[in-house]
Amino acid sequence: MEKLKSLERLEEALSRLPGVGKRSAERMAYAMLDFSDEDLAEIGDAIKEIKTNIKRCKVCGMITEEEECSICTDSDRDESLLMIVSYPKDVFTIEKSESFKGKYHILNGEISLGKGMHTEHLNIPSLLERLNKGKVKEIIIATSPTVDGETTALYLAKILESYKINVTRLAYGLQMGGNLDYVDPLTLSKALEGRHKL
Amino acid sequence: MEKLKSLERLEEALSRLPGVGKRSAERMAYAMLDFSDEDLAEIGDAIKEIKTNIKRCKVCGMITEEEECSICTDSDRDESLLMIVSYPKDVFTIEKSESFKGKYHILNGEISLGKGMHTEHLNIPSLLERLNKGKVKEIIIATSPTVDGETTALYLAKILESYKINVTRLAYGLQMGGNLDYVDPLTLSKALEGRHKL
Repeated sequence: MEKLKSLERLEEALSRLPGVGKRSAERMAYAMLDFSDEDLAEIGDAIKEIKTNIKRCKVCGMITEEEECSICTDSDRDESLLMIVSYPKDVFTIEKSESFKGKYHILNGEISLGKGMHTEHLNIPSLLERLNKGKVKEIIIATSPTVDGETTALYLAKILESYKINVTRLAYGLQMGGNLDYVDPLTLSKALEGRHKL
Repeated sequence: MEKLKSLERLEEALSRLPGVGKRSAERMAYAMLDFSDEDLAEIGDAIKEIKTNIKRCKVCGMITEEEECSICTDSDRDESLLMIVSYPKDVFTIEKSESFKGKYHILNGEISLGKGMHTEHLNIPSLLERLNKGKVKEIIIATSPTVDGETTALYLAKILESYKINVTRLAYGLQMGGNLDYVDPLTLSKALEGRHKL
């Protein structure tokens, strides 16, 4: 029996989501046949409109619905301490550990030869602009402990050499080869304590 | 840090899908921030439009994009043999096994006190209409071996008593390729009851 075109189209679309294989896309598609029209419209629109109201903070590159993100505008946070992360989701992960009260800078990517990501694709010009204001005393590089994350960290360490700034890297309490998404808050706060000079 | 409203809305929407928990909805939502507008539109529309072209076959209740499904219109299939299943997805599952060449009837539900599904919600009137034509000689009840599936099977067996039709139920037993270690006691006792000569 041929599969219906509408179902095939939906399964193909769903299987583009991370962690969704052919089998789970199929299960989701069948389940959606029993959803109300209102539910389908709500899910569909939430997806279509996810980027509509989301911009990048003009200071740090974080995702935000305002001009500047809520961390950049928070005067209670220590602006002499700057943590550099690869992706916006990393900020949410670190914030959950409640172990960091400085500010962030988001590269929005990592150097990756495989994915064709080069240094010019990273949010670095606005980083140097921030540093030139002279308020940052320490930079913590918190890219993932993966090949791409390490490459990016080393590249950053090199271009930051000319600044009179203490540059550190999160301690290797992190699991090598792991993904920052899956670090538990305790490990993360230990890694923060044990950070070392690059 | 507060989570962005757009992200929260998307995560809530995604977590309505089967098998998608809070954590995977979050991962999907973040990943979608990097999707192109075209990809987001395609996924969103595939969801919103899934029911637009899909109707129920007027003969068997299967999902179809035509008036009658491709199995009901297939004259090569044995119309004296009818398999009753609970959901359209069950038809796809059974078709994959390539072990059945009769026709189907889809109840589009199972009797479930918990879910408020009663006999009048099932696609039974059109089943009786088919049986009254006198061509069906055997009915195989293939509802799931769950409480709701069994209840439905017993109910069907009862209303089919007045027809001169052989009514059977799929056998219970060990899963092919499975390990005896993992068989639950109830299945094992059913497999023992249904043992056959080698």
